[in-house]
Amino acid sequence: MNGAQSLIQTLVACGVDVCVMNPGTSEMHFVAALDSVPQMRPVLALFEGVATGAADGYARMADKPAATLLHLGPGLTNGMANIHNARRAYSPMVNIVGDHATYHKAFDAPLNSDVDAIARPLSDWLHTSTKPADVAADAARAVAAARTAPGQIATLILPADASWGDAAGPAQPLAAVARAKTADTTISAIAAALRSGERTVLLLNGLALRERGLIAATRIGQHTGARVMSDTFAGRLQRGAGRPSVQRMNYFAELALEDLKGTQHLILAGTKPPAAFFAYPDKPSQLVPEGCKVHVLATPAEDAIEALEHLAQAVGAPKHGYQVEAAKRPDQPRGKLDSAAVAAGIGALLPEQAIVVDEGNTEGIFTPLTTAGAPPHDWLYNTGGSIGIGLPLATGAALACPDRKVICLEGDGSAMYTIQALWTMARERLDVTTVIFANRSYKILNIELARVGAATVGARAKDMLDISRPNLDFVAMANSMGVDACRPETAEAFCQAFERALREPGPHLIECIV
Amino acid sequence: MNGAQSLIQTLVACGVDVCVMNPGTSEMHFVAALDSVPQMRPVLALFEGVATGAADGYARMADKPAATLLHLGPGLTNGMANIHNARRAYSPMVNIVGDHATYHKAFDAPLNSDVDAIARPLSDWLHTSTKPADVAADAARAVAAARTAPGQIATLILPADASWGDAAGPAQPLAAVARAKTADTTISAIAAALRSGERTVLLLNGLALRERGLIAATRIGQHTGARVMSDTFAGRLQRGAGRPSVQRMNYFAELALEDLKGTQHLILAGTKPPAAFFAYPDKPSQLVPEGCKVHVLATPAEDAIEALEHLAQAVGAPKHGYQVEAAKRPDQPRGKLDSAAVAAGIGALLPEQAIVVDEGNTEGIFTPLTTAGAPPHDWLYNTGGSIGIGLPLATGAALACPDRKVICLEGDGSAMYTIQALWTMARERLDVTTVIFANRSYKILNIELARVGAATVGARAKDMLDISRPNLDFVAMANSMGVDACRPETAEAFCQAFERALREPGPHLIECIV
Repeated sequence: MNGAQSLIQTLVACGVDVCVMNPGTSEMHFVAALDSVPQMRPVLALFEGVATGAADGYARMADKPAATLLHLGPGLTNGMANIHNARRAYSPMVNIVGDHATYHKAFDAPLNSDVDAIARPLSDWLHTSTKPADVAADAARAVAAARTAPGQIATLILPADASWGDAAGPAQPLAAVARAKTADTTISAIAAALRSGERTVLLLNGLALRERGLIAATRIGQHTGARVMSDTFAGRLQRGAGRPSVQRMNYFAELALEDLKGTQHLILAGTKPPAAFFAYPDKPSQLVPEGCKVHVLATPAEDAIEALEHLAQAVGAPKHGYQVEAAKRPDQPRGKLDSAAVAAGIGALLPEQAIVVDEGNTEGIFTPLTTAGAPPHDWLYNTGGSIGIGLPLATGAALACPDRKVICLEGDGSAMYTIQALWTMARERLDVTTVIFANRSYKILNIELARVGAATVGARAKDMLDISRPNLDFVAMANSMGVDACRPETAEAFCQAFERALREPGPHLIECIV
Repeated sequence: MNGAQSLIQTLVACGVDVCVMNPGTSEMHFVAALDSVPQMRPVLALFEGVATGAADGYARMADKPAATLLHLGPGLTNGMANIHNARRAYSPMVNIVGDHATYHKAFDAPLNSDVDAIARPLSDWLHTSTKPADVAADAARAVAAARTAPGQIATLILPADASWGDAAGPAQPLAAVARAKTADTTISAIAAALRSGERTVLLLNGLALRERGLIAATRIGQHTGARVMSDTFAGRLQRGAGRPSVQRMNYFAELALEDLKGTQHLILAGTKPPAAFFAYPDKPSQLVPEGCKVHVLATPAEDAIEALEHLAQAVGAPKHGYQVEAAKRPDQPRGKLDSAAVAAGIGALLPEQAIVVDEGNTEGIFTPLTTAGAPPHDWLYNTGGSIGIGLPLATGAALACPDRKVICLEGDGSAMYTIQALWTMARERLDVTTVIFANRSYKILNIELARVGAATVGARAKDMLDISRPNLDFVAMANSMGVDACRPETAEAFCQAFERALREPGPHLIECIV
């Protein structure tokens, strides 16, 4: 058995049985070892950002890490934007980064780079396996690190000679650091704040946005008068008819300030104090009002569900009678196809247990509204703000949940960062329906350009935010990668296309010019 | 005047007048400032790897840096693979990386990251402008650093408040550190080695591969019996009819060892000692034979042309009568379209002063042979081994040389890393003809999988190197981004398509199933 075989066997033993990869020469022993460990599912990506984004989507839905296999420093850098996003979702991930053989590094061959230094800024755990005999144990440590609450980025650098050298065998799984429980004294103190009658907001993210967390938070809110809110960008929000809903913080800082205005107690469950997404001249970055007391009920690494349920009990919130979203769908839209019509069509037709990946950005703003009363579903946002996550995230969610429909809401500009994901969807026949909101512009930047106070905005500036020269043809693009696609021109045609896409297994893309 | 305006004015004053960009909110003041400095040409890319690869291509052809504008840490990481390649080509480059406002960093907003740590491993010069008044002077230092011999990666991190705050005005250009001259004593010592009658190889890269360097090296070789060779991957090689040719070192280590076998003196001009591209079990990484004396005539940072001319004089090489490549073209191919036929067609039709970007990889191996006697042209290789450079490099070369035809030879697998470059080519109406060698495989990895000694290769391993499931349709892909494209099925049809593409201005793509 060589190091690579011991590695893959260990990953599988630790429950990591999907690896999204874009390998190169230094990873050939890993690739060759795949046939000896049939429990590992290898998934090929044409670009590394697809691999890391897919690992994020997989982790959010499977609640366990996938692995990626990346080729040396440059392969890692190609995947780093979506590692950044995954880290902000607290998604566990095990990145295996191939490197030159240990003795080869000194020759500084063309592909050589300081992989450790490149990986460090975005890795919560980082290690280089220099000996084949150590690879298995290192892999077990990597998985345990990834699974350490709330979910971490573990990067294992694998020199080629550690991969091809002799190893003893796989290593046993290690226990991961579990989520800590909130202390009773903290619960009591927060319960007292809730009973004070002062204006209180309960701000949720992470585990708190799973159905159980939402139920407990809603019970608390209804019983005490506290408002229940979520961060703007949730890693995974369970929502829909029959589930409690939660008010989302606004994206733009001035509106987010209004959200929290007058708040005297801010209780955090599964999140940290909110800040403005960007800085703007003469606007505050701090969203927490002056004098507001911040209470940490559960950090992202703590068990927010248990803490919320404990708190609900402490304040004496009734177990039943909490408000849930009523089943309600918009009518199927008719006439002109615009962002609102697309959102209505999605709301009218969203299937039960759908997974919605939302990188619809500016044009996608109506979809959360029209789907609030749709059958229960999961909603995945871009938590890190680096656009180009949607298609990969949908890919990973579909790998994790083959029995559920994945709906990927994508801006046209966003889609183009990692468009190669369409090919992996086609290759793996993933049940992903991508809806492209094509406004042919970096529209958010047109808004931001005004908001940042740029004095004069000329033609050349506007041109840098305009992606209509030339227009992108997403139907041809999808077809070029083996994905069925269409471009409906009316609301009725959109609904027909969306229904058909949901009915027919495999990936589909619907381009909506909005 | 704000910091952003002072920055762009300074860049222009320092001779940097092209900026390839993918901006975000934190770069909006930079974008807004573009209209006030019409000498700066902004070029939009849909993905940051296109921006950095284009800056590399621009620098190789213009012999001066372009700037890039990237959005925070993730935008930088998206561009880093091609920064790695550029660095290995010693291409000067000025990366402007926007960051959150200085005071906003502490809030750790979703897009926050340690940009300095991310940039450091691949930056030769790195600085954060924390004060708007300093931005101009910092920009002048960045350009000087980029222009420091042999060409460096300069990264200037620009917090949003440094961009929008008040600045005094642009800064004056600073002198860059010029290429050092080789000492006379070194020349004499190397001349003595050349006169020794022992087996000598003169290994060239960088400036030494410009026509003047090649002439001097060839004079030395002919006069002394030394063999003249180049590294496998040259940043820019001037070649074609009427120019001296140079033997290229083999890519595969065992063949490269043969190239240098028995060499007693290895003279380096514009390069460093060669090493195997990858390590393989039981094969050496070191290509320099044991006992061979290595002489550094000129490091990449030194003036290899002057050193070679000086050395030619020192050994008494005649000024005239050096051998050049005879004008010679293959006949236009007929019948079956395969890699050899594509290469023959390109050789038959390559226009004078063409710029050939070669990321043809496995299938592209015949093109250097069929074009050796074509009219004079420049040949740009991937110097860093991170695939996905070809289309961006061609984009940048075309930006630098609007009067020349750019031919981009691309593998299908390689093309997909940065396929978004096609859109920028269409947008800027660049004269680039891309030839896709579609073998529907990571063919090099199929070769490497056997070479690394992987014992058994099963179906799942092979599947990870196979990109035929589904096949990519590069005609639809190119059309989707506004690029004219076709898929000729015979050698004759290829020649017709290639001729038409050269005749008609603007980008074209020809997909060849080989």
